[in-house]
Amino acid sequence: MQKENSSRAAKKTGLAPGTVVYVGKKANKNLFIDVFDYNKDYLDEKQLKNIEEAFTYENKETITWINVNGLNHVKEIEKLGNDFELHPLILEDITNTKQRPKLEEHQEYIFVVLKMLYFDKDQNLKFENISFIQGSNYVLSFQEMDGDVFDAVRDRLRNNKGRVRSNGADYLLYVLMDAIVDNYFNLMEVMGEKIEELEENLFEEKSNNDLIQEIHGLKREILKIRRAVYPLRDVVNHIDKVDDSLISEKTQLYLRDLYDHVIQVSESIDIQRELIWGLMDMYMTTISNRMNEVMKVLTIMATIFIPLTFIAGIYGMNFENIPELKFQYGYFILWGVMLVIFLGMLYYFKRREWL
Amino acid sequence: MQKENSSRAAKKTGLAPGTVVYVGKKANKNLFIDVFDYNKDYLDEKQLKNIEEAFTYENKETITWINVNGLNHVKEIEKLGNDFELHPLILEDITNTKQRPKLEEHQEYIFVVLKMLYFDKDQNLKFENISFIQGSNYVLSFQEMDGDVFDAVRDRLRNNKGRVRSNGADYLLYVLMDAIVDNYFNLMEVMGEKIEELEENLFEEKSNNDLIQEIHGLKREILKIRRAVYPLRDVVNHIDKVDDSLISEKTQLYLRDLYDHVIQVSESIDIQRELIWGLMDMYMTTISNRMNEVMKVLTIMATIFIPLTFIAGIYGMNFENIPELKFQYGYFILWGVMLVIFLGMLYYFKRREWL
Amino acid sequence: MQKENSSRAAKKTGLAPGTVVYVGKKANKNLFIDVFDYNKDYLDEKQLKNIEEAFTYENKETITWINVNGLNHVKEIEKLGNDFELHPLILEDITNTKQRPKLEEHQEYIFVVLKMLYFDKDQNLKFENISFIQGSNYVLSFQEMDGDVFDAVRDRLRNNKGRVRSNGADYLLYVLMDAIVDNYFNLMEVMGEKIEELEENLFEEKSNNDLIQEIHGLKREILKIRRAVYPLRDVVNHIDKVDDSLISEKTQLYLRDLYDHVIQVSESIDIQRELIWGLMDMYMTTISNRMNEVMKVLTIMATIFIPLTFIAGIYGMNFENIPELKFQYGYFILWGVMLVIFLGMLYYFKRREWL
Amino acid sequence: MQKENSSRAAKKTGLAPGTVVYVGKKANKNLFIDVFDYNKDYLDEKQLKNIEEAFTYENKETITWINVNGLNHVKEIEKLGNDFELHPLILEDITNTKQRPKLEEHQEYIFVVLKMLYFDKDQNLKFENISFIQGSNYVLSFQEMDGDVFDAVRDRLRNNKGRVRSNGADYLLYVLMDAIVDNYFNLMEVMGEKIEELEENLFEEKSNNDLIQEIHGLKREILKIRRAVYPLRDVVNHIDKVDDSLISEKTQLYLRDLYDHVIQVSESIDIQRELIWGLMDMYMTTISNRMNEVMKVLTIMATIFIPLTFIAGIYGMNFENIPELKFQYGYFILWGVMLVIFLGMLYYFKRREWL
Amino acid sequence: MQKENSSRAAKKTGLAPGTVVYVGKKANKNLFIDVFDYNKDYLDEKQLKNIEEAFTYENKETITWINVNGLNHVKEIEKLGNDFELHPLILEDITNTKQRPKLEEHQEYIFVVLKMLYFDKDQNLKFENISFIQGSNYVLSFQEMDGDVFDAVRDRLRNNKGRVRSNGADYLLYVLMDAIVDNYFNLMEVMGEKIEELEENLFEEKSNNDLIQEIHGLKREILKIRRAVYPLRDVVNHIDKVDDSLISEKTQLYLRDLYDHVIQVSESIDIQRELIWGLMDMYMTTISNRMNEVMKVLTIMATIFIPLTFIAGIYGMNFENIPELKFQYGYFILWGVMLVIFLGMLYYFKRREWL
Repeated sequence: MQKENSSRAAKKTGLAPGTVVYVGKKANKNLFIDVFDYNKDYLDEKQLKNIEEAFTYENKETITWINVNGLNHVKEIEKLGNDFELHPLILEDITNTKQRPKLEEHQEYIFVVLKMLYFDKDQNLKFENISFIQGSNYVLSFQEMDGDVFDAVRDRLRNNKGRVRSNGADYLLYVLMDAIVDNYFNLMEVMGEKIEELEENLFEEKSNNDLIQEIHGLKREILKIRRAVYPLRDVVNHIDKVDDSLISEKTQLYLRDLYDHVIQVSESIDIQRELIWGLMDMYMTTISNRMNEVMKVLTIMATIFIPLTFIAGIYGMNFENIPELKFQYGYFILWGVMLVIFLGMLYYFKRREWL
Repeated sequence: MQKENSSRAAKKTGLAPGTVVYVGKKANKNLFIDVFDYNKDYLDEKQLKNIEEAFTYENKETITWINVNGLNHVKEIEKLGNDFELHPLILEDITNTKQRPKLEEHQEYIFVVLKMLYFDKDQNLKFENISFIQGSNYVLSFQEMDGDVFDAVRDRLRNNKGRVRSNGADYLLYVLMDAIVDNYFNLMEVMGEKIEELEENLFEEKSNNDLIQEIHGLKREILKIRRAVYPLRDVVNHIDKVDDSLISEKTQLYLRDLYDHVIQVSESIDIQRELIWGLMDMYMTTISNRMNEVMKVLTIMATIFIPLTFIAGIYGMNFENIPELKFQYGYFILWGVMLVIFLGMLYYFKRREWL
Repeated sequence: MQKENSSRAAKKTGLAPGTVVYVGKKANKNLFIDVFDYNKDYLDEKQLKNIEEAFTYENKETITWINVNGLNHVKEIEKLGNDFELHPLILEDITNTKQRPKLEEHQEYIFVVLKMLYFDKDQNLKFENISFIQGSNYVLSFQEMDGDVFDAVRDRLRNNKGRVRSNGADYLLYVLMDAIVDNYFNLMEVMGEKIEELEENLFEEKSNNDLIQEIHGLKREILKIRRAVYPLRDVVNHIDKVDDSLISEKTQLYLRDLYDHVIQVSESIDIQRELIWGLMDMYMTTISNRMNEVMKVLTIMATIFIPLTFIAGIYGMNFENIPELKFQYGYFILWGVMLVIFLGMLYYFKRREWL
Repeated sequence: MQKENSSRAAKKTGLAPGTVVYVGKKANKNLFIDVFDYNKDYLDEKQLKNIEEAFTYENKETITWINVNGLNHVKEIEKLGNDFELHPLILEDITNTKQRPKLEEHQEYIFVVLKMLYFDKDQNLKFENISFIQGSNYVLSFQEMDGDVFDAVRDRLRNNKGRVRSNGADYLLYVLMDAIVDNYFNLMEVMGEKIEELEENLFEEKSNNDLIQEIHGLKREILKIRRAVYPLRDVVNHIDKVDDSLISEKTQLYLRDLYDHVIQVSESIDIQRELIWGLMDMYMTTISNRMNEVMKVLTIMATIFIPLTFIAGIYGMNFENIPELKFQYGYFILWGVMLVIFLGMLYYFKRREWL
Repeated sequence: MQKENSSRAAKKTGLAPGTVVYVGKKANKNLFIDVFDYNKDYLDEKQLKNIEEAFTYENKETITWINVNGLNHVKEIEKLGNDFELHPLILEDITNTKQRPKLEEHQEYIFVVLKMLYFDKDQNLKFENISFIQGSNYVLSFQEMDGDVFDAVRDRLRNNKGRVRSNGADYLLYVLMDAIVDNYFNLMEVMGEKIEELEENLFEEKSNNDLIQEIHGLKREILKIRRAVYPLRDVVNHIDKVDDSLISEKTQLYLRDLYDHVIQVSESIDIQRELIWGLMDMYMTTISNRMNEVMKVLTIMATIFIPLTFIAGIYGMNFENIPELKFQYGYFILWGVMLVIFLGMLYYFKRREWL
């Protein structure tokens, strides 16, 4: 996590504010731009070859969704930003992949930053920054790289399912944000499975320090998820108050629903956090339990045999005058005595419930 | 818990918002609809065969309570919703059993979502979603499946007990919510008994990892209960501010009382939470106490017999010249010496209060 | 605690709201009603035989304090309530001994619920509900059973000490609440002594699981006390804002002082809570310290004698050719060697500061 | 701490509110009153023999600081209070040494209660109550007993240093409060040294239960300090809003600076609190570390010598037919075997890094 | 940390408020003053020899940044303050290196205090106080000693990069604060590396009490960092509300961006804090794990050899009549029996998964 915070610093320290710099590791080889231009009765989907083609959409009467993949192509993003008259600081925020979720209301558009969260193939938690610019009749979206959670939205656009084609750009923004938040539920499910798996592993005998590191890893992950999701509550709540020239009253209703979902995810995060924090205690207790078992075995064995060995030692002494040694059945009597001691010990441990 | 959060995602990801889908596991084979139509002097109770029969009640002057069991019958619920002119998002929320408790005030009705909590036969905590629509002269209630906590309310309606028949739909809503909240007290009682039972088990010798899992299980349960009850405080508090065309001032008084009860349950949850969190510490301490006992037994036995065995070993050596071995009473003197050592050890342990 | 929450449920589930039912265990055989009727120059103290005698006091110009002991006499309380035109929900709250502290402002009177806390003979923490109705010229007080903290107030009334006789019903209410809050200081003192006693017991060798249970018991008690006292802050703070036809500005000053005392008790509760929570950690640490001691004794004994016993074992072997055995002073030389080893070990343990 | 809370109760339970009683242990034999009467050009410092002499200062045009040491002289304080027309509740608060810090704004004066904190000769934390009454041209200060932190202020008055002589009573009040808050920094320094000392002691071998009690003692102290300082934030912050007939705008600036200092002390308290809470964990961990060391020594010794002793035991047996015993170099071969086992063990422990 | 709090007290107790005293350890031998005087087209950079030269810049139309290094040169700072008509309390705050971050809005200027944080060569965390006075056309900055994070800013001024030369003094203030906040990201990166390093060390066998001290040291550091950064949120947030004669609306936008960064740092601090707090638990658990390993080795060795040694002891006894001793193959049969016991034990430990 500190890596993330600081890589920004590493690249940006000393630069003038508002300088548009790509801060991030994952790079997209090619800039990928796809456009959905639509209204109720019409849909035009195409991929743009260069950024200049996008400029024509700004003043069309139809609703346009321009999706840009590849934040490392800074120049092109800057051109697009200039055409759409975005503030330099916003361009800086778009390309800064460490930007925290936020909402900014401007005269002509609103600017929203979110985090897309997913586990990669190696089950590592990944964060991808996604920014939206929503104007009166367009939505621009900027992603770090290819691959997103919007395929279902694209389907609905193509097939004119749901209400998305009959509504404005504000509804499109809502639908896209909803897709991201819906994906958080999937994420929480994976986290939940990880926690349950860990819980089960805790009770296996062969546990070791790896488990401690896994618990610590989960802590880090849930803290990072919380950091990505919590600010969303302010963001979604704040959209409610955006001027209704940009967000219609009808869409507000849907946004309130989205807010509900964000709260629900936050609550899940809180619960999982408490459970993860409890795991270390649980593990500690199972270790103690196990050590208790080990100690009992040692104590029982030692307590039974130590006095018996002592007695054997006594009659191994070489004193010239040890009368017992000369008794004909001395050896057998001794076995009897030892048996009595042995049984007495067993009874004692049984009564203390150690056996 | 994560299961719950995510099953929503699993079923709903990619669907258009406002799509009415049943999200839940428990399914009711048949849709069950019962209606109470009443005023001060009149009561008509009947079960409906199909949803269309319910449409007639919307504009009757009497108060009508239409209770629908079986959220999986989505089509019928959608029909009813359309007839009562409910917003699509509300219909979505009704059938989404993962919906968190909330209140929404609309022009013509208010919409309330609550959780019904109970332990099933295997003492597993179950959640059932219940939604209310209250208009000026009707209350619609939607439950996941048969079985609820409203039998006492039905009795009062039938026998004209209490004030319910002489009051409006707002009072009926209050009475139904009150029945749910009253049931929380029962739930807290069961939780309290579980905690006390666990506390007693902690001190038994034969405890093991099961106990840790039980404590962890209680944590999960209280977290889930808290999640179901806490939002209620906002809900009930907010009803207070609902326009009094829907909730009369007289009913407000009762709702303030209900709010009181919700706070009381919340406080119980907080206290139980702190007690459950303390259980793991308590258990850890009892384990340490027990290990201390085990160690003492081992140490006492070893400390007493190790030097004695050493002495026996000495006189078991085969040196040709060991003068003591030839003393006539050497063996008996040695026993005396050992006895002195033994008693000295006992005295030492007594003084350190280990015995 | 859960018992308390739930006994309400057990008795009340299914009853219509506003039904006046006695919820509680302690029952007073007889209803006990005593009345103080007074003004600056006049005092009439008497015990009433039946509740109807109380009705005459409602409209007298003098100040009247009617104290009712025995909440199980529901019928009589209902009669009194009807005569003083109290709302049914208030009557329900009065007889519900699980009611949390609260204040309600009505047109003609204010309604206050408090908790009287005390330790009984067996040092068990007890809660008693007490409700006040204060009108312009009367105070009604309702207690679960005989015995209260108001004797000093009665004395002052009888002997015209202090300002109570020269002030109105609002001042009487303040004086009664002040007596209850003053008693909390006594309670905190007892709690403080219990904590200190426990702290001292922690360091005694013979401690055991009882101690864990006592610490857990203290946790429960402080949580219950907090639950009874915390809401008082809102109550007293809120009185400040009551319409001054019921509470004069002069009395407000005194109430602000009372608020100060409530805050002071709350702070004491918080501090004691932190100390009690620390006790379990302390105990855990003392156990570990003690186990460390035990382990050291074992280790020192074993480490010293195990090599010595090994050496004795060597020369107890029956090899035909062990040259040392034939040395004339072999036995004595061996004692010398063992002494050197023994002293070396002692020196080692001294240097590690284990001795 | 509980002692403090409750001694109030012990002495005051049952008294009428507003009764002026001295609640405290430390008593001043004689009442000590000193007066500074001054303006820019004039200073009169004297000690008063009886309280009546103070009455003349109320309406002088010069600024007067009357300092009263000895809160147990209740009668005299009452007389002074009556002359300066103080409310009875204020007089009660002045003599109640358990009063929490607060500010009250009255028509003609403001009333401030603070705590003076210091460590006595035995390093015990002591609290002394100090109250101020500030009118338009006078400041009354009431201390429990002789000895305070105002000597520097007195010097400045006498030598006309700083701004104090050229400003009003409000500035004098600020200067006095500033002296008290400045002293808190000294207190925090001592606390900090105590914490560091404890930290160092934790790692010494000879630690014991005393350390646990010292940590617990620090907890109590920091909780008490916090209790004395935290309310100050409200007090100082509130002064800001006092009517400017009593506190001039110019002085407000200084008070904002004082507020800054109070916040700074609060932050130090919070940090120290976290560090103290961490000490118990640290101690627990060092104990575990130490026990680990002890266990390793035992295990290494036992593991090495137990098999060797077993082998010696084998050849100490008296079977008639044990061929090895008759080998001429059997004894020396055995020593070789034992050496190999010994070295093997050493190698094993080295590899596990236990040595 | 307590050192810092208290050194203020040590030096300042007893001084009149507003006395300008240098509170700090690090002293700059010489006062170092450098000035940037610029507008869009012009830049004059020079070092001043004495403070009086600075006076001329107050009323120039160009923007001037006067940077003063060496807070121990109190006299000169006082002179500068008087010339720029700063309030004495502000001068006191500038030279008080323990001043917490704050913002004060005055008629003619705003006053901002920040902390510059860095690790010195020995990886000790250092704090340096830095104060800014921003008037309509000048910024004064005061540092404890040479060396700062502003070199990049100076470069931009010299080379007319970015927007700084074309904007006013408010923008310069923003740029300087931004440089400080950017540096916090570097700091968090170092902290993050320290945490990760510690985590790895936890799992090495040879860990010891040093680790505990390092964890405790990290706690102290993160608490101190938090203390330096948290108040910044109020500071930056508050600047937003400063009268726009001092801070233009245009600059406000940039400040909102700065606020974002401060929040981001705060979140990183919170996450690191939780991780550091978890380290002690982690360490405790690894110790327990390790002790468990040690105990297992001991128990396995002892449990296997104790019964075998007992058997050897039996046949080492000197009874005259022990029939087994006379069997021809008695010795070899015994070896067989011992092997069986040995293998049985191994099997037992395998099954319990201790091996």
